[in-house]
Amino acid sequence: MADGRPGFGAGEYRRRWAALQARMAEAGEDALLLTGPADVFYLTGFLTRFWESPARPWFIVLPATGDPVAVIPEIGTHLMGQCHVGEVRTWPAPDPVDDGIGLLTETLAALVPERGRIGLPMGLETSLRMPLADYRRLTAALAPRAFSDATDTVQRVREIKSELEITAIRETCTLAARAFDAVPAIVAAERTLDAIFRSFQGALLEAGADWVSYTAGGAGPGGYGDVISPALPVPVRRGDVLMLDTGAVKNGYFCDFDRNFSIGPPDDDTRRAQTALYEATEVALNRLRPGMTARDAHRLLTCALSERGATPGGGRLGHGLGITLTEWPSFTDRDTTLLHENMVLTLEPSVEIAPGRILVHEEDIVLRADGPELLTERAPFDLPEIEI
Amino acid sequence: MADGRPGFGAGEYRRRWAALQARMAEAGEDALLLTGPADVFYLTGFLTRFWESPARPWFIVLPATGDPVAVIPEIGTHLMGQCHVGEVRTWPAPDPVDDGIGLLTETLAALVPERGRIGLPMGLETSLRMPLADYRRLTAALAPRAFSDATDTVQRVREIKSELEITAIRETCTLAARAFDAVPAIVAAERTLDAIFRSFQGALLEAGADWVSYTAGGAGPGGYGDVISPALPVPVRRGDVLMLDTGAVKNGYFCDFDRNFSIGPPDDDTRRAQTALYEATEVALNRLRPGMTARDAHRLLTCALSERGATPGGGRLGHGLGITLTEWPSFTDRDTTLLHENMVLTLEPSVEIAPGRILVHEEDIVLRADGPELLTERAPFDLPEIEI
Repeated sequence: MADGRPGFGAGEYRRRWAALQARMAEAGEDALLLTGPADVFYLTGFLTRFWESPARPWFIVLPATGDPVAVIPEIGTHLMGQCHVGEVRTWPAPDPVDDGIGLLTETLAALVPERGRIGLPMGLETSLRMPLADYRRLTAALAPRAFSDATDTVQRVREIKSELEITAIRETCTLAARAFDAVPAIVAAERTLDAIFRSFQGALLEAGADWVSYTAGGAGPGGYGDVISPALPVPVRRGDVLMLDTGAVKNGYFCDFDRNFSIGPPDDDTRRAQTALYEATEVALNRLRPGMTARDAHRLLTCALSERGATPGGGRLGHGLGITLTEWPSFTDRDTTLLHENMVLTLEPSVEIAPGRILVHEEDIVLRADGPELLTERAPFDLPEIEI
Repeated sequence: MADGRPGFGAGEYRRRWAALQARMAEAGEDALLLTGPADVFYLTGFLTRFWESPARPWFIVLPATGDPVAVIPEIGTHLMGQCHVGEVRTWPAPDPVDDGIGLLTETLAALVPERGRIGLPMGLETSLRMPLADYRRLTAALAPRAFSDATDTVQRVREIKSELEITAIRETCTLAARAFDAVPAIVAAERTLDAIFRSFQGALLEAGADWVSYTAGGAGPGGYGDVISPALPVPVRRGDVLMLDTGAVKNGYFCDFDRNFSIGPPDDDTRRAQTALYEATEVALNRLRPGMTARDAHRLLTCALSERGATPGGGRLGHGLGITLTEWPSFTDRDTTLLHENMVLTLEPSVEIAPGRILVHEEDIVLRADGPELLTERAPFDLPEIEI
């Protein structure tokens, strides 16, 4: 943008609006109402960490034709004014009497005919980022206009990434790889898991991350307990497998991949799990294609692991990636979402080495017509060893 | 906790459950259903950055008597098992067919009589972190049980901080102060705003933050444009006022305060605004008392600024603080929330120096019976100057 704000040019946003409007026409939606940080960013380029404050709702309305309208708290006027949007309407939020609902009602009433329909994401992986009581006031005030589920409208557009987006995600993956390179030195300098995680986040920032929205990981003898816990002030010991997982962010785009390290030489069980995971990922890298489903991807990975005598982890074994840490679909045996060219996905096979001891690999890919293209530098075949 | 996980002992959680249950009894709520990260953390100590993934909903049910029940995705079993909660019930999420709604319906049906009422926060500063379509399925399946707004139940308990919580917030403020001390050296080493912000986040981590959920700020000649924008790759210049604002996190508790620096000597307008802001904060520090309202706090600050010839900023001039970056109430002319002893609050007066040029101060306090006690080290009277 004009002031040096990172982001894409107007053409990318016009493409997104048109793609959504085409889906809206098919679904019979006369307007789309969006309330969440990712959807707002996707439509306008509005990027701020201010979403951390739950105080105020933010609304973007995309009409059937024309540019989106932002109905937002006054505090966002300056920043939204530099984004890609038609009209910007504001109110002095937070207002305990009317926190934007009057203004939003007016906006939608003018854009949607009385017998029309307003699409709102209501399905899997969505939530409504506004007070439920205000949503009820809104639907009552706009009746007989109907609200319907626009999850499909939004997800079918957002899940296909443009080359600009793919480049942005690759850039985040690349900077994270440099931070992972620093892990042996970090472990040599620090002894406890929480200190290692602090330094690792510092390394991500030094490598160029704008911020670090997610880190998780663990360390334990021959595997760790889970992949969502924050780091504890416990020492890392010889024999541990150390895992760091990160969702760093640059220009609003996430990476999401992990790396494993053996503190001292790994035991035989860990070696076997490592080999099975590496090879299962290779199978997916070789065989995944557009036209398969998320369930097919799950099957590729679980079969590859089972054939190698490993016990696949119970959770999902990969997912979408982009402007949130995880996006749909989910590589489970229940998700029948079709995989398309230019979806960005993670391959995340996990193995249960023993009860309560798991090993998880993760790579980020973009699915091309002829198969996956890696966005991450491939993890090494052998578990890297760190001597302490 | 037993494994060295930071957090409070069981007594603190039992106190919270009892306080909520007392409010629930008054409000006629037979159970409380909570879905958001802050409420889940408040009731159980469950702390993870995994909330960044929008894929899965998480539910905590607090019955009228007895311990809370966690109804959560399987991936959380290990971590929730180390938290403060009664039963933990899990399902293999994400499940596109039934993402926990069957299990949650069963759980609530067993705890709430058929003519009973389930409280759910629906009001200001709340949102429902689950798909709206699933919420509709849940309410239909549980009828004739009613869902009602439990915003007041939750907020009146959470807004009064225990001494354990106050100590935790003070600790986060203290570490952030050390990071602010590093700003002159950072500015000397870096020249662009985005690089300064990266290094500042690194300094927060080095000072002991577990993670940095929020940074914002700006720089401009004699003031900045807003306080929510991410940092741009633009050079900082002599004559700029540089502001950094942070919500760093330690043990799940936030600080939220900013510091301003003048690059070279400030101009006269900036000096006057600085003095007015410093003195307005002093007025609030001397005169704020329990029994006043949020609106009274707003009036104290705006009058003190106006009396000094400054134009008060239009937004809120302070707010609650704790397990989210901002909590209720809001120091505006519309918020009549009563201020109580042991509320943790920010004083955040702002001055419009000229159109599009503002200066904002912020300190964190705990309101005691005899007035505010600072949790931040007081900002200096004079704007610190950095020579570049």
